[in-house]
Amino acid sequence: MGFKKHLSSLKSYEAGKPIELVIRDYGIREKDIIKLASNENPLGVSKKVIKTIKKEAKNSYRYPDDSMFELKKSLAKKYNIDSKNIIIGQGSDQIIELLIKATANKGDKILTSALTFAMYGIYASHNQVEIIKTKDGVHNADQFIEEYKKSKPNLVFLCLPNNPLGDCLDRDEVFRILDTISSDTIVALDCAYGEFAAYRNKNKEIKPKEIINKYKNCIYLGTFSKLYGLGGLRVGYGIADSKFIDLLSRIRPPFNITNISLKAAVTSLEDSDFIKDTLKNNFKEMEAYKDFAKNKNINFIESYTNFITFILPKNVDSSGLCEYLLKHGVIIRDLKSYKINAVRITIGTKKQNKIVLRLIDKYLKR
Amino acid sequence: MGFKKHLSSLKSYEAGKPIELVIRDYGIREKDIIKLASNENPLGVSKKVIKTIKKEAKNSYRYPDDSMFELKKSLAKKYNIDSKNIIIGQGSDQIIELLIKATANKGDKILTSALTFAMYGIYASHNQVEIIKTKDGVHNADQFIEEYKKSKPNLVFLCLPNNPLGDCLDRDEVFRILDTISSDTIVALDCAYGEFAAYRNKNKEIKPKEIINKYKNCIYLGTFSKLYGLGGLRVGYGIADSKFIDLLSRIRPPFNITNISLKAAVTSLEDSDFIKDTLKNNFKEMEAYKDFAKNKNINFIESYTNFITFILPKNVDSSGLCEYLLKHGVIIRDLKSYKINAVRITIGTKKQNKIVLRLIDKYLKR
Repeated sequence: MGFKKHLSSLKSYEAGKPIELVIRDYGIREKDIIKLASNENPLGVSKKVIKTIKKEAKNSYRYPDDSMFELKKSLAKKYNIDSKNIIIGQGSDQIIELLIKATANKGDKILTSALTFAMYGIYASHNQVEIIKTKDGVHNADQFIEEYKKSKPNLVFLCLPNNPLGDCLDRDEVFRILDTISSDTIVALDCAYGEFAAYRNKNKEIKPKEIINKYKNCIYLGTFSKLYGLGGLRVGYGIADSKFIDLLSRIRPPFNITNISLKAAVTSLEDSDFIKDTLKNNFKEMEAYKDFAKNKNINFIESYTNFITFILPKNVDSSGLCEYLLKHGVIIRDLKSYKINAVRITIGTKKQNKIVLRLIDKYLKR
Repeated sequence: MGFKKHLSSLKSYEAGKPIELVIRDYGIREKDIIKLASNENPLGVSKKVIKTIKKEAKNSYRYPDDSMFELKKSLAKKYNIDSKNIIIGQGSDQIIELLIKATANKGDKILTSALTFAMYGIYASHNQVEIIKTKDGVHNADQFIEEYKKSKPNLVFLCLPNNPLGDCLDRDEVFRILDTISSDTIVALDCAYGEFAAYRNKNKEIKPKEIINKYKNCIYLGTFSKLYGLGGLRVGYGIADSKFIDLLSRIRPPFNITNISLKAAVTSLEDSDFIKDTLKNNFKEMEAYKDFAKNKNINFIESYTNFITFILPKNVDSSGLCEYLLKHGVIIRDLKSYKINAVRITIGTKKQNKIVLRLIDKYLKR
C-alpha cells in the first residue's frame, strides 16, 4: 500500500486505563472504581460547567465558532493579553503537534528532558524528527543549556512542572535557559500543571504576558484538562507573540474544538470557588502520600502538580503493584513504559486516597 | 523565528459565517437568523442525543475512552463490519489530514476534481503536497482515470456526492475508477453526504463492506456532522481494511474525540425516526429550490446532498446576493472563493426556505 515506510514502526500513546475497560475486563462495578491514572480533577466537573453543557446541548448540530471569539476573550482577560496572542488546541497536545509540524523536518532535532511528557516524542516520531534528551529525567537548566549549545535543536520543550515526575524549574532558571536560546529556535513552556506549581510556590509561576513581551520565539501552553476539570472536553491553548500565533494558526485544523467544549471552558474560568477547592484539596491530600512514602521508605519526587510519583524499591515491581490495585478497582499509572520502576498517582479525594494507600500498604506487606 | 518558510503563504479554510458573528456584526437577534451556510441539519439535534449529552455532562473531567470501543461497536454493527476496520476522527476532516500525512511527502501529488471540498487542498498545502485536478468541477470518471494515469498521484479523493457542487458519481463509475488504480495509490471515498445520495438514488450507494472486501487501498469516509445533526461535536470516521486502519491509526492523536461526542454519536445512530425525518424533509424541500430556479432561469446542479448550488447569471453577483441576505439575517455560502459565481444553500425547514427564496426573489427584482 502507498503508506510511508516509517508508519509501521510508530508506537502509540499509552493512555491511563479507562474505567470502561476495568468494568469490562475485571467485572468491577463503575461506582467501585477509583481512577487516579490520568491526573483528572478528583472533584469532577464544576456544577456551573455542567449547567452550561446542558444548556448548549441543543446547539450541537451547528458548527462551532471557528474564530473562538468568546473563549479567546476570556483567556485574554485572565492573562491581561490580546486575543491575537492566543491559539486554541484540541488539548494542549494539539499545539505540541502543530509546533513540531511547523518547525521541524525529517531529521531535525527537538530537545526535552530524559523523562517527560510522552507526546513530545510521539509527535516527533510521526514527523521523523529526532528527540535529543538531557542526561537527567528531572529538568536541569544547565543540562538544557549545554545540550542546546551542542545539538542546536529546532524546538525545545520545557515541561513546567514536569509530567510524569512532578519536578519544576524555578522561573529564574527558565529565564536563564530562554536567555541562552537564539531566536530561530522555538521554545515551548508546557504549563499544563502550571497553576498547581504557582499555587505551591510563587517562584514557579510563569506569567504568559511576561513571556510574550520578552521572548518572541517562546510559547506558553495551558490546558483545561487538569485544574479546570475538563479532560474529556479536549481544550488547551497556546500564548505567544501575535506573529508567532498567526503563523502557527495557519496549520490549525478548522473546527478543532466542539461548541460544547468552547462554552464549558469559558464557564470553567469563571468558577473561582471550584478552582480554589481543587488546589486546596490537592496539596492538603498530597501530604498523606508524602507521609506514607516517608513511613515506608519509598522515594518520591517533590511534586508541583496534582500527582505524586513513587520511585519503588527494587523488590517492589511497579507492574505488579498496578495489577494488584487494578484487581481492587484502583487505576494508577505504571511508569514502566518510561523505563523506571515507579508509579504515578493522581491526588484524589480524601476518601479515595485512604483506600489507595491502604491497598498499597497491603501489597507491600504481602 | 524558526518556522518553516511555506507557513506564511498558507491560506485558512473559509468557514460559513457563525451566527455569533452575525449577531455581533449586523445587530440581528439570534432567533431571527437563518443559517443555511454549513449544511447543518435544519431539524437540529435529535432529542435522544440531547438527553445523552445532558447525562454525560458530569463525566467531562474524565479523559475519553481512547479505544472508542462503544462507538466502533455501533458503527461495526451498522455496516456489518469489524471494529478493526474503523478509525474515528475529529470530523472526517481529521481523517483527510491523516491520509495526506500518511501517504504524501513534499512534492508528491494528490488527485481531486477541479471543484471540490476545500480541505483536500488546504491540508495538502500544509504538507507542501501538490494538488492535481481533473478538468471539470463535477466528478467525471474518465477524467479521473486519465489524470491518474498521467500524474500517478499518491492519493485520490473522490467526493461522493461532491461538496460544494452536489453532483454524485454512480457506484459503477466509482468502481471503474477503483479498478484502474494500482494498489500503491490510496483512494479516499469521501461520503460525508453519502446517506443523502443513497436515499435519493440507489445507484449512488457505496457500501463500506463491499469496498473493504474488494479494494485494500481504499477508505470510506463518513461523518456525524450532516445527516446525524452533530456538526458541533466533531465526529467522523474512516472504514478500510484492518491493515490500512492499523497503519493510519498510528498517527491519530490520542483523545481526539470528546467523551460527550462519543456518547452522542452512538445515540444518534439509534434514532432512526430523526434520520428518516431529516432525509424526507430534505428532498421534499429541495423541490422548492429547484422550482424556484427553473422559474427564474437560474442554473443549478442536480443535488444528491442536503444543499443546492445555484449557478448565477452574470448580472447577479454571488457576493452581492450573500451580503444582501446577511443584512436580512440569512447566511448562505458564497462560492466566489472557489472562483465561480455561485451560491450554495443548505436545504432548511419549510419555513426557513420560504423566507430565503422570498428574499432571493426580492434581490433579483431590484
